[in-house]
Amino acid sequence: MFLTAKFYYEVSALKINENYLKLEKNYLFIRIAQKVKAFQTTHPEKKIIRMGIGDVTQPLAPIVVDAMKKAADELAVKETFRGYEDSGAGYDFLRQAVSEYYKSFGADVPASDIRINDGAKSDCGNLVDIFDDSNIILITDPAYPVYVDSNLMNGRQIVYADSNEENGFAAMPDPDGYDLNGKKIFPDIIYLCSPNNPTGAVYTKEQLAIWIAYAKQHHAIILYDAAYEAFIRDENIPRSIYLLDGAKETAIELCSLSKTAGFTGVRCGYTVVPAELKTIASDGTEVSLAQLWNRREGSKFNGVSYPVQRAAEAVFTPEGQKQVRKSILYYQENARVIAETLTELHVPFTGGINSPYIWFKCPFEMDSWTFFDKMLNEIAVVGTPGAGFGKNGVNWFRLTAFGDQEETREAMHRFRSLF
Amino acid sequence: MFLTAKFYYEVSALKINENYLKLEKNYLFIRIAQKVKAFQTTHPEKKIIRMGIGDVTQPLAPIVVDAMKKAADELAVKETFRGYEDSGAGYDFLRQAVSEYYKSFGADVPASDIRINDGAKSDCGNLVDIFDDSNIILITDPAYPVYVDSNLMNGRQIVYADSNEENGFAAMPDPDGYDLNGKKIFPDIIYLCSPNNPTGAVYTKEQLAIWIAYAKQHHAIILYDAAYEAFIRDENIPRSIYLLDGAKETAIELCSLSKTAGFTGVRCGYTVVPAELKTIASDGTEVSLAQLWNRREGSKFNGVSYPVQRAAEAVFTPEGQKQVRKSILYYQENARVIAETLTELHVPFTGGINSPYIWFKCPFEMDSWTFFDKMLNEIAVVGTPGAGFGKNGVNWFRLTAFGDQEETREAMHRFRSLF
Repeated sequence: MFLTAKFYYEVSALKINENYLKLEKNYLFIRIAQKVKAFQTTHPEKKIIRMGIGDVTQPLAPIVVDAMKKAADELAVKETFRGYEDSGAGYDFLRQAVSEYYKSFGADVPASDIRINDGAKSDCGNLVDIFDDSNIILITDPAYPVYVDSNLMNGRQIVYADSNEENGFAAMPDPDGYDLNGKKIFPDIIYLCSPNNPTGAVYTKEQLAIWIAYAKQHHAIILYDAAYEAFIRDENIPRSIYLLDGAKETAIELCSLSKTAGFTGVRCGYTVVPAELKTIASDGTEVSLAQLWNRREGSKFNGVSYPVQRAAEAVFTPEGQKQVRKSILYYQENARVIAETLTELHVPFTGGINSPYIWFKCPFEMDSWTFFDKMLNEIAVVGTPGAGFGKNGVNWFRLTAFGDQEETREAMHRFRSLF
Repeated sequence: MFLTAKFYYEVSALKINENYLKLEKNYLFIRIAQKVKAFQTTHPEKKIIRMGIGDVTQPLAPIVVDAMKKAADELAVKETFRGYEDSGAGYDFLRQAVSEYYKSFGADVPASDIRINDGAKSDCGNLVDIFDDSNIILITDPAYPVYVDSNLMNGRQIVYADSNEENGFAAMPDPDGYDLNGKKIFPDIIYLCSPNNPTGAVYTKEQLAIWIAYAKQHHAIILYDAAYEAFIRDENIPRSIYLLDGAKETAIELCSLSKTAGFTGVRCGYTVVPAELKTIASDGTEVSLAQLWNRREGSKFNGVSYPVQRAAEAVFTPEGQKQVRKSILYYQENARVIAETLTELHVPFTGGINSPYIWFKCPFEMDSWTFFDKMLNEIAVVGTPGAGFGKNGVNWFRLTAFGDQEETREAMHRFRSLF
């Protein structure tokens, strides 16, 4: 299409968003998939155990499947058919159910602050649309790559807070600010994830209170990713940032049913933008962030499928909670097995207790891609090299507890043979 | 949150995207809903007939419901459970089915060019993310408000091509360019919609060929919204822009099952970015737009629910097509009744033949909001004032054919009483 000459940019012509060209070309999981495929081709006899991508393996709870089928049946009949959802924010029945779920662990989140979506990932990037591109983003390193990529796509400037062995992979804010182009700056938008992906580390109430105070002091906002909250067992680890004082004036929370209820293929999540969250426009008028967000979603989001919303509603019933807890316990047992193995082998790690992720230091002083190759070639176990999550991950490695229990035990058996 | 003083903007602090403040506050359908609610409160005895919002009313086809329930059952069993979709672009079974559907009316669109999404609306705005914000947008007026809003949100400059009574509400490109800030410019990104929302007007092959030539000449891209293609009956009206020569090097097509198969509550659509669509970056390298788009979606879109994709697949089977055609014929009969009434009353209109929308000139020389009030107050029929779609709509009015047949006939009976 278009001109083939270098004169293209001198005429009026379509221009791409060149920020995309600055993104890492070889996306982490694609590179892993290529390596695994190559190994499989040369070693067809080896049974590969996959503990890399954080996807669940347990089936949906029966109550969830029943609810989805019942909703499908409603759509088959004119009298109960539903078309567009009025607001696109999610049906009241589901927003109310999520609000009650929050209440069950002590957080007061009204249904009106909740928007239903297709999972947490999209909104990690979408939320920033309502803020000016000049805002400076703080991301902990290592981090879920989507935080970085979705901001680089809009050319936003990012600074990093180091999560490392010294701080237990739970970065705390730097009171002196962060280096950006030779200057010390304070961030405007702060991404936090607890339980953390990839490190499995969790923030205590005390630590989160420090982040909230820091955000307030520097007039910043926290985007709090709580996608793994259902794995928290420790009473002192908050399952929502809204369990902390002042969070409603400072934080947006993202959550998902992907890991809570095995919805990675069903797709449903929710984002909380509290009514208390306000800022000031350049003309001095007060602006509600929820209003901006609703406006954004009204034009750029289609809402979630009705049968999916009914399935999600079922997750939050007492019987639904009982059924989905079974899968979580199943995965927690995997996490225990992995953690036990690493402990016995004296391999330092974080996660595994309040998290489905286990993040360990690569043995034999290897870097993470070298250790990835060793695991794949010697014991046919696939994990995720920490380097894919940031510079503080270059010597670390992520395993997930979402696999089959028998396979996880077999993988740990093989893992011991490396030592 | 934050500072309450006007000094806010002098310190390092979170700044909102102020483009949002420039958007129309009172969104069209909210204003309509408010007026209808007020009328209902004061006239509880009146039976209101709604022909405003373009939502379907016929239930899902049985084959679609069965497919969704079968897929839900698969997710209930470990052996057939599915989590994340590998690519997020949609399952091959559905992309292949959409490709076959294109083939059924003569368009050659390979499955690899198709991405499955949650409906056409989101991508109307999302697609522009892969282009630089400096590109100038051309939108026909009147138009679907989402084209305008989703571009204003990013501060992009928009020029308008007039669709009006003279050109049958099918704007053609201006060879002299468009006025922008006192200069003549040529657009970089062109939104076209045929069959058109709101006017029901359609482009012929000859007209579309002119748009494609224009886009090529000016190194622009066409975003072609074909969401209503299933309503086209006339052989000379293309159901896809890819029936035209050169379209694959010039156009992205958006389509949806919302109107084709009553998926407004189920949510599924598709976007075609042909492999042939390429442009040049500022450093002279050739860039594939599909690659940029896949990168965007990989970070910012979660993919579509598996049971929804199975439901969509069923739409494109021979039996599925037979079943969904029934609903389309049902709506087409409504369109015929509306068109017949307007013809008899000598009210000028477009649409209604190849489209579920009928766009007519307000009688009694009224503007569209005045006529809206007259319809609501005198005959309790709700339509959509053309003013909500742009300046060329101020004296025009949209009715949809998506209602109940009996109600539509009753509405037209009442409509005659106005004259």
